[in-house]
Amino acid sequence: MYKKIDAQDVQFLKELLGEERVFVGEAISEDYSHDELGGISRLPEVMVEVLTTEEVSQIMKHAYQEGIPVVARGSGTGLVGASVPIQGGIMLNLTKMNRIKELDENNLTLTVEPGVILMEIAKYVEERDFFYPPDPGEKTATIAGNINTNAGGMRAVKYGVTRDYVRGLEVVLPNGEILKVGGKVVKNSSGYSIKDLICGSEGTLGIVTEATLKLLPLPKTVISLLVPFPNLDMAIGTVPKIIKSKAAPVAIEFMQREVILAAEEFLDKKFPDNSSDAYLLLSFDGNTKEEVEKSYEKVAQLCLEEGALDVFISDTDERKQSIWSARGAFLEAVKASTTEMDECDVCVPRDKVAQFITYTHDLEKAFDVRIRSFGHAGDGNLHVYVLRDGLDEEAWKEKLSAVFACMYRRARELDGVVSGEHGIGFAKKPYMFEQYDEAYITLLKNIKLAFDPKNILNPGKVCQ
Amino acid sequence: MYKKIDAQDVQFLKELLGEERVFVGEAISEDYSHDELGGISRLPEVMVEVLTTEEVSQIMKHAYQEGIPVVARGSGTGLVGASVPIQGGIMLNLTKMNRIKELDENNLTLTVEPGVILMEIAKYVEERDFFYPPDPGEKTATIAGNINTNAGGMRAVKYGVTRDYVRGLEVVLPNGEILKVGGKVVKNSSGYSIKDLICGSEGTLGIVTEATLKLLPLPKTVISLLVPFPNLDMAIGTVPKIIKSKAAPVAIEFMQREVILAAEEFLDKKFPDNSSDAYLLLSFDGNTKEEVEKSYEKVAQLCLEEGALDVFISDTDERKQSIWSARGAFLEAVKASTTEMDECDVCVPRDKVAQFITYTHDLEKAFDVRIRSFGHAGDGNLHVYVLRDGLDEEAWKEKLSAVFACMYRRARELDGVVSGEHGIGFAKKPYMFEQYDEAYITLLKNIKLAFDPKNILNPGKVCQ
Repeated sequence: MYKKIDAQDVQFLKELLGEERVFVGEAISEDYSHDELGGISRLPEVMVEVLTTEEVSQIMKHAYQEGIPVVARGSGTGLVGASVPIQGGIMLNLTKMNRIKELDENNLTLTVEPGVILMEIAKYVEERDFFYPPDPGEKTATIAGNINTNAGGMRAVKYGVTRDYVRGLEVVLPNGEILKVGGKVVKNSSGYSIKDLICGSEGTLGIVTEATLKLLPLPKTVISLLVPFPNLDMAIGTVPKIIKSKAAPVAIEFMQREVILAAEEFLDKKFPDNSSDAYLLLSFDGNTKEEVEKSYEKVAQLCLEEGALDVFISDTDERKQSIWSARGAFLEAVKASTTEMDECDVCVPRDKVAQFITYTHDLEKAFDVRIRSFGHAGDGNLHVYVLRDGLDEEAWKEKLSAVFACMYRRARELDGVVSGEHGIGFAKKPYMFEQYDEAYITLLKNIKLAFDPKNILNPGKVCQ
Repeated sequence: MYKKIDAQDVQFLKELLGEERVFVGEAISEDYSHDELGGISRLPEVMVEVLTTEEVSQIMKHAYQEGIPVVARGSGTGLVGASVPIQGGIMLNLTKMNRIKELDENNLTLTVEPGVILMEIAKYVEERDFFYPPDPGEKTATIAGNINTNAGGMRAVKYGVTRDYVRGLEVVLPNGEILKVGGKVVKNSSGYSIKDLICGSEGTLGIVTEATLKLLPLPKTVISLLVPFPNLDMAIGTVPKIIKSKAAPVAIEFMQREVILAAEEFLDKKFPDNSSDAYLLLSFDGNTKEEVEKSYEKVAQLCLEEGALDVFISDTDERKQSIWSARGAFLEAVKASTTEMDECDVCVPRDKVAQFITYTHDLEKAFDVRIRSFGHAGDGNLHVYVLRDGLDEEAWKEKLSAVFACMYRRARELDGVVSGEHGIGFAKKPYMFEQYDEAYITLLKNIKLAFDPKNILNPGKVCQ
């Protein structure tokens, strides 16, 4: 169906980019065959490092004309196989397009290349007293990866998700045309919002080559609360009450003892407390300590009324650091505790979180498999991991598939969606196809065709 | 090209809806032939009042099969002719689908039918201590109209635009299929964001039959500042400095003396001050008076340093009411002061507002025509009105077209967009076509085709 890369194609790429940025065959590292948690892998036929929008455009023009599949890749921290070149072809490695181009203090925007990693953006803006709110756990992800999954992260409860902070994009279309969508403007009602469609499109509609992000002033004070509960039901049951109380926490995370212990072992560092079965971790921000205290006092009281064993207030950097670095290591820690794992990233309405988590405990018993979960209780986005441990290949695949089928069905019953922030990519397609009816899927396919009539950009992903 | 409505079609509609909700020929009020500021008008061949999603779906199925154009209409407060049935056909009047269906306090959402008007939503939620931040000037617009233009309003500076508050939609596609997109979930990365595409699509991609809106806790205190300046340049020049100071005002509006005088006359009510040439009107909110004071004190000081003549603080309801009701009447007041007018709704980066407004003053002299402007200085979205006054039809059309061409060109030069919140509809198409290159327009047309292959839903609008 697709054209295989031949000597002329390689020649074209080498002439365009120079020898040293074109990798073929064994020169391509195995790393580029998979992402963080794929289960699927394939190497591209050729991997190129691009440095400019114009290069991306020239390569897409060539690929479009020749019918060669192309996949764009950032840090490869995805969790659904979205950047795996399942049809081979060309992989565009965008990690070297990693400059911060402009901080515009008059318009509160930051313009960056696609390969800048999240922790650099955070550092850059915070040093200058600005704030980029999206805060996914994986700090080495590139900004374009975040845009393409519409990553949410911890602070979504108060601040929303990546899409809400993308003001403008430069995008190279599958046919090589360069499009500027949005800009530094705050409002835009000038034709269909292509910007919002690119956000969350997982590299299937266009290649992001520049992004203009919205910044906020940096809140002057952030305070975290670590709240132990006797059990998870009580912890999670408290969350809708916090929301209903009209407090405005920045984040509400939940975690269980086992995950904390795994993180302690993984980091070789003690968590401030690990004696309880379940915890809520909350943060609050504002411009004065008094203002922040006012907003968390009510919540602390409410937690205690709901049966919390204590409320630890972390207002020193050190203590906050120890809590949040543990939280940041959960994924890696759980991963290190087993042989293999796969994740379910559903998002359910916030008052359904407890029901969903209880159900995963039932599954753990029914299927005799370890299931670990943590996540964003405050926004209903749950990360549930099924662990392989000692299972052989066949038993693992069978069990995983049965457990996933149950979890995604339950999420649907609870009016949830198949992915909160990791995306669909390749791995979660079957569950998305179950979620939507035919009319919905047809529309998604039609949208893909509107951008990519030859289906060369990241084929076989999302809705295909 | 399109099928004309015949007796069978009318019969079908009457059987579906009953005689009393189907209007044909002279039974259709002239009101339905235009919107608020169109310049274009045409009556539909048949106008129907719908009450349920199922009715909308049945009508679309019929229209799709027969090839009849359909336009959906709310309150008709649009400003670009988006709801004018320029091809005749069926008009769906959605104003009677006006129920507030559910306030979900656990998930902070409000689910409404499309015809609920904005002021009802504001009243309903504020009485219950919740807050729906989007606040366009036209309070009698329907919520579906707001969604379809992605209306912004005054509070966008701090709170963003309508799209940011739409969590889920029920949409009837041109072929009659009913789609549920999004929901009560806070995060969603499950396929292309159809929800975000529908927002701002001006009734051309689907018909919104239900919306689930995100609410916030109601801020307990709002304080407004009215700041007179010796001239408009000084007033507007202060805005980027306010943004840069990292204050977080809810709104920054600018207004000139002439517009205030027109509003006073129109409302027969005095504005708190009308002695200065130009004003900024700011508002700040928060949960305590101290917190709000803290945030505006710095801004008040900054305004005085920049040459403001005074700073009037309005913390009583009465005084705020008098200021904001005048602001709310600007459009009507300017309209009442002339024979006819047309508006330019550009959005430019915030630090370009002064340049754009200065340019409109140059145009006023160069073309010897009255131009009035006011708007959202804090977000760069400007409403500039060209007034016909005594010009005859031909001279008016010629002058308007020349002045508009200049203004939209200038907006493009300043990296602005053709519409901030009123949309493109029918009237602003030429300016959008000038803004985007061919690849962009092709993509917009392809997206339209992805939803509406027979081009029956609101044909001839946005990108056609």
